[in-house]
Amino acid sequence: MSSFETLVKDRRSAMKFIPDVDISERELNEMFSLTKFAPSAFNLQHTHYIVVKDPEIKNKLYGAANKQYKVLSSSAVILVLGNTNAYQDVGPIHEGLLNLGVMSKQEYDMTVDSVLSFYGERGESFKRDEAIRSASLSAMLFMLIAKDRGWDTCPMIGFDPVAVGQILNIPDTHVPAMMITIGHEDTSTQRPRGYRKPVGEFVSYNGF
Amino acid sequence: MSSFETLVKDRRSAMKFIPDVDISERELNEMFSLTKFAPSAFNLQHTHYIVVKDPEIKNKLYGAANKQYKVLSSSAVILVLGNTNAYQDVGPIHEGLLNLGVMSKQEYDMTVDSVLSFYGERGESFKRDEAIRSASLSAMLFMLIAKDRGWDTCPMIGFDPVAVGQILNIPDTHVPAMMITIGHEDTSTQRPRGYRKPVGEFVSYNGF
Repeated sequence: MSSFETLVKDRRSAMKFIPDVDISERELNEMFSLTKFAPSAFNLQHTHYIVVKDPEIKNKLYGAANKQYKVLSSSAVILVLGNTNAYQDVGPIHEGLLNLGVMSKQEYDMTVDSVLSFYGERGESFKRDEAIRSASLSAMLFMLIAKDRGWDTCPMIGFDPVAVGQILNIPDTHVPAMMITIGHEDTSTQRPRGYRKPVGEFVSYNGF
Repeated sequence: MSSFETLVKDRRSAMKFIPDVDISERELNEMFSLTKFAPSAFNLQHTHYIVVKDPEIKNKLYGAANKQYKVLSSSAVILVLGNTNAYQDVGPIHEGLLNLGVMSKQEYDMTVDSVLSFYGERGESFKRDEAIRSASLSAMLFMLIAKDRGWDTCPMIGFDPVAVGQILNIPDTHVPAMMITIGHEDTSTQRPRGYRKPVGEFVSYNGF
């Protein structure tokens, strides 16, 4: 078994954390420095993270997340947002490759035009899908990076997105794709790992 | 740098593949055996994978994906679907823990009821979000697992979901969250890695 396989199996969603464990901004930023290598459509990097360590704001998020104890006991609560308007930044994002001469001006213009029309044609529902898709790809990578450094995480959707949006001043352009609590898991009451379906039940070949 | 960090940096979206490289069902199934450890809300395991190696079906998918050469040259094309009705399986999925005595009958009943009402209250848009979220978390894990075993991948959204649904007999309950092409990358014309935003541009503390 490769060390990566061990990491995948060791990562489990934490049910509660040991309280009062600090996670530094420096360590979080190191993790995000690696998280940025997550893929995104047209490299648009739709994902934005809000990290909450402040006890007062955490307490408000606890209220907006059905008073789940893991929110209070975590070292930080992280909101993973997807920007529905990320495609509008296609120009600035590809400017670097243009300036390096890796992309010609013609290619650059074509990329910008095609991305704008790609999202424009598909409309609002697609933009929301994209925001959630991109943020979720990034979030999975973040949780593995955290585990590799000894931090446990739990991805959560049991929260009121409107209340969370108000607490954190999230603009309407950004969809809260999930909440992630991070800390050191309190394993004293840990359950056996949840059942997983056998491969034959979720994989099929050449058709559904 | 940990070996996992190297893996994260080495994984890049492949632009084209070396044609005629076979990937066996056995190897794919081994990868899916590990992919199943991806987290999902309430452990509902919304994700379904369809793997296409058959040249004729692959050719049809090529047509439905704007004739992108990476579809043709890949060793397999994989559709990652999210089941919008996964919550309806909450009973069977938690039966194992009930039978093991890890969950009491009362806890089991509460879980089933609360999951059914959780999804019921939030409606269709939430079910779609969930399908895409869960499938994307799983897909990111799959792509890292593939890279760890020497396979390159490219997540794609540039395809016609209706046409793909018809080709693969995908039921209306399942949303195609993305297409993944897998193979050995032809790096002869590989570009420098795309620009990534600095951490300060996509991470903020205590608010947006």
